[in-house]
Amino acid sequence: MRIDIITVLPELLRSPFEASILKRAQDKGIVQVHVHNLRDYSTNKHKNVDDYQFGGGAGMVMMIEPIDTIISKLKAERDYDEVIYMSPDGETLNQRMANSMSLLQNIIILCGHYKGVDQRVRDQFITKEISIGDYVLSGGELAAAVVADSIIRLIPGVLSNETSALTDSFQDNLLAPPVYTRPADYKGWKVPDILLSGNFANIDRWREDQAMEHTKTRRPDLLE
Amino acid sequence: MRIDIITVLPELLRSPFEASILKRAQDKGIVQVHVHNLRDYSTNKHKNVDDYQFGGGAGMVMMIEPIDTIISKLKAERDYDEVIYMSPDGETLNQRMANSMSLLQNIIILCGHYKGVDQRVRDQFITKEISIGDYVLSGGELAAAVVADSIIRLIPGVLSNETSALTDSFQDNLLAPPVYTRPADYKGWKVPDILLSGNFANIDRWREDQAMEHTKTRRPDLLE
Repeated sequence: MRIDIITVLPELLRSPFEASILKRAQDKGIVQVHVHNLRDYSTNKHKNVDDYQFGGGAGMVMMIEPIDTIISKLKAERDYDEVIYMSPDGETLNQRMANSMSLLQNIIILCGHYKGVDQRVRDQFITKEISIGDYVLSGGELAAAVVADSIIRLIPGVLSNETSALTDSFQDNLLAPPVYTRPADYKGWKVPDILLSGNFANIDRWREDQAMEHTKTRRPDLLE
Repeated sequence: MRIDIITVLPELLRSPFEASILKRAQDKGIVQVHVHNLRDYSTNKHKNVDDYQFGGGAGMVMMIEPIDTIISKLKAERDYDEVIYMSPDGETLNQRMANSMSLLQNIIILCGHYKGVDQRVRDQFITKEISIGDYVLSGGELAAAVVADSIIRLIPGVLSNETSALTDSFQDNLLAPPVYTRPADYKGWKVPDILLSGNFANIDRWREDQAMEHTKTRRPDLLE
């Protein structure tokens, strides 16, 4: 998979892609992440990529021309499955969406910033708008990193143990059961006996019950 | 506000807090962000902070002892309003929650990693569990950065123009109306005439109508 991220803050995205699983996925050649500085595609001498809103009001708007230039350049080089815009009014990311996006070959992610992009960018170039949740961030950069992380970890070969991702929360519409590790007794707080019993059939049943109970209590909407 | 983030991947959090608004908020002295490497609080010579699950199964679990040590140390230094654990089964972050958290003084954010933390950590130390959405990430680090960003930008003095945050999506349960900037005509794609009219009463009305229409189409649930 190849992910091209277009941003006015490439430096913000540096460390998330240089650490942990996102780095390993790139080192293994499974994923290529290219971060593009939108300012490099500005046509004016001050390298501006934003301007005041038509009609007045607080907040700057990202201009269409530099975005058109970089997206057109990328699309001339290869086919893209999706050109994604990160925006709080996009479709809310969920695990099902991450699963399906993990099968794509090439995607572009445009990070909104300031008051957002000129609406004509969304009308003309964007094929999918994604929100990571009902809250506002200072820009789309962290949201783009979240989308990339949620997708990349699902690509076969990225996680060292593939069964690990399949037992995560949401993959079966259930929250994960509680987990425990050593010591069995810490300051008098003990691990449930069943987990120390060695009876794996009972342990599996206990985990299923706990996952169901936990989901009923916290997120009954997932069971509907 | 002071935010203490506990993580096994401090390097992942470096650039998000060294760029843009999160950096400016710290430079202005409005926010202090301290990132703690959990491994520094490991008690064994290999600096391990995780171990196998009791009861078997894929994925490692973060041990209680190093977490107890760092949280106890911080709590001995000052009072904390919340000790937060980032987890996909926590309460889902939304703008209302971000607004209310922006009023807190001191918070700890513990980033889950691997299969999560020993359940006893959640039972004994955690006062609030937050999820940024219904999807799984490789760790809580990006989620912690998202929470910090959503909160910090709301603190007075952080954004250069305070009216900017108040007109964002979700603050009035409406999505934002479309925005446009120069040029008025780009490749034949034109800005709506009304925005060029100079009639600000009409422009305000148009924006309200557009916000309502956009919300009805995309997120009717916000209007309920």
